[in-house]
Amino acid sequence: MEKIETYSFTVEPFHVDFTGHLFMGVLGNHLLNAAGHHSHNRGWGIDQLNERHYTWVLSRLCIELDEMPAQYEDVEIETWVESVMKLFTERNFLIRNASNGRVYGYARSIWAMIDTETRQPSDLLALKNGDILHYVLTEEEKPCPIAKHGRVRLSKAAEPIRTLNTYYSDVDINGHINSIKYIEHILDLFPRQQFEQHSIHRLEIAYKAEAYQGDTLTFIGEPMADLLPDGTPAATQLEIRKNVGREDKPEGESIVTALIKWGDN
Amino acid sequence: MEKIETYSFTVEPFHVDFTGHLFMGVLGNHLLNAAGHHSHNRGWGIDQLNERHYTWVLSRLCIELDEMPAQYEDVEIETWVESVMKLFTERNFLIRNASNGRVYGYARSIWAMIDTETRQPSDLLALKNGDILHYVLTEEEKPCPIAKHGRVRLSKAAEPIRTLNTYYSDVDINGHINSIKYIEHILDLFPRQQFEQHSIHRLEIAYKAEAYQGDTLTFIGEPMADLLPDGTPAATQLEIRKNVGREDKPEGESIVTALIKWGDN
Repeated sequence: MEKIETYSFTVEPFHVDFTGHLFMGVLGNHLLNAAGHHSHNRGWGIDQLNERHYTWVLSRLCIELDEMPAQYEDVEIETWVESVMKLFTERNFLIRNASNGRVYGYARSIWAMIDTETRQPSDLLALKNGDILHYVLTEEEKPCPIAKHGRVRLSKAAEPIRTLNTYYSDVDINGHINSIKYIEHILDLFPRQQFEQHSIHRLEIAYKAEAYQGDTLTFIGEPMADLLPDGTPAATQLEIRKNVGREDKPEGESIVTALIKWGDN
Repeated sequence: MEKIETYSFTVEPFHVDFTGHLFMGVLGNHLLNAAGHHSHNRGWGIDQLNERHYTWVLSRLCIELDEMPAQYEDVEIETWVESVMKLFTERNFLIRNASNGRVYGYARSIWAMIDTETRQPSDLLALKNGDILHYVLTEEEKPCPIAKHGRVRLSKAAEPIRTLNTYYSDVDINGHINSIKYIEHILDLFPRQQFEQHSIHRLEIAYKAEAYQGDTLTFIGEPMADLLPDGTPAATQLEIRKNVGREDKPEGESIVTALIKWGDN
């Protein structure tokens, strides 16, 4: 079986922001769908793993774009597995215009497999006799020319920007706050002018712990020192903490960290 | 050209709620996409109308379901125009399982056309020499066996439940709060138990005025007197008012009304 799989979609009118470009969260959703189809078609889909009491957990996602697809454009996502270690696998994505082949950008993701009963990480190489190794395309065979995930380190001075409650629409089939909803909530921290003047050049997000409906999410943000030509910060570091301010654990728990690098429009 | 068009989709993993069923908002989005394809293919798409400085405005949407599609199910939406009056057109939908033909439910919608320069309603019958009449399928030719939109009448005693700010993710390409986002915010008013114990049998929503990023939305809700066998309200009436409490107009402006009829799970 081919190691690369291509997933196609059209940018729908209700999936674009006020600039007419695809919402980053919707792109993230399409990447996860592409991953789902690729893994399912190779016997490693969540539905197939559930029968063995395993499931995939998204650990990190990193999207870097020269350009965001616009309304009505036809888009293709190629996805493949770059590496498999004992507890993690790296899956990459190429995102291109289906009509003219122009590459919008790339994405990288890191996944763990957990035992759904113990919630403990499982050995990817032990499952199905190492079958997953059949699908690896190394960096040399299929390049993904964007940097790997970096580290987000907010200073102690970083300030909370907003605290949100979580509701029905935030939660996925597992009862967890949906990976994509975090991206939406993070982008909602920025004013309209930010998106009028800048596009998102790169988004990194690391999922460290789960949250559930009813948890409060506190968003902490810190602009980095580098500036764009217009004098605004070139990047913003973010952290989401859940249930800050409760008596037993006033500092809450860090559940997500993220980095946004802004580009000029 | 056929008067009915069929639009297909698969229920994606990240589009289902914690019960494993499609979010109502996502279903609404698919209905609007189906409408968009049907109208585009007949020369009445928003893109084609924009060239003539017209656009469609969704006035009412009403969805009634025996069952909500579940994760991974293949769904088909049939859509057609039931009637055209001078200032409004009625568009209906049938929603069925693509594998076994079982009908999940139906939907009705009412649309106006406005002049994008004057924001005034336009005469649908005058545009393109009444071409739109070629696509009408009357109730006798293609039944839509759910009630038409009713009226929502909250009492003076109805109380505000929540006030939300609006952000980047709420806004569509026209800078308006997205029709679908209102549905999400409305359903987020209900606790998890509501969806554990009940499904949405019918949703009616009327869009009365636009809101913009930065407007605040105040949600007012009132359970109706009818009870389900478990003693909970069989229906909830809702209203969204924007910018309540501002000095110049403390009562705000009513922008959306809605009715949810609950079914047993």
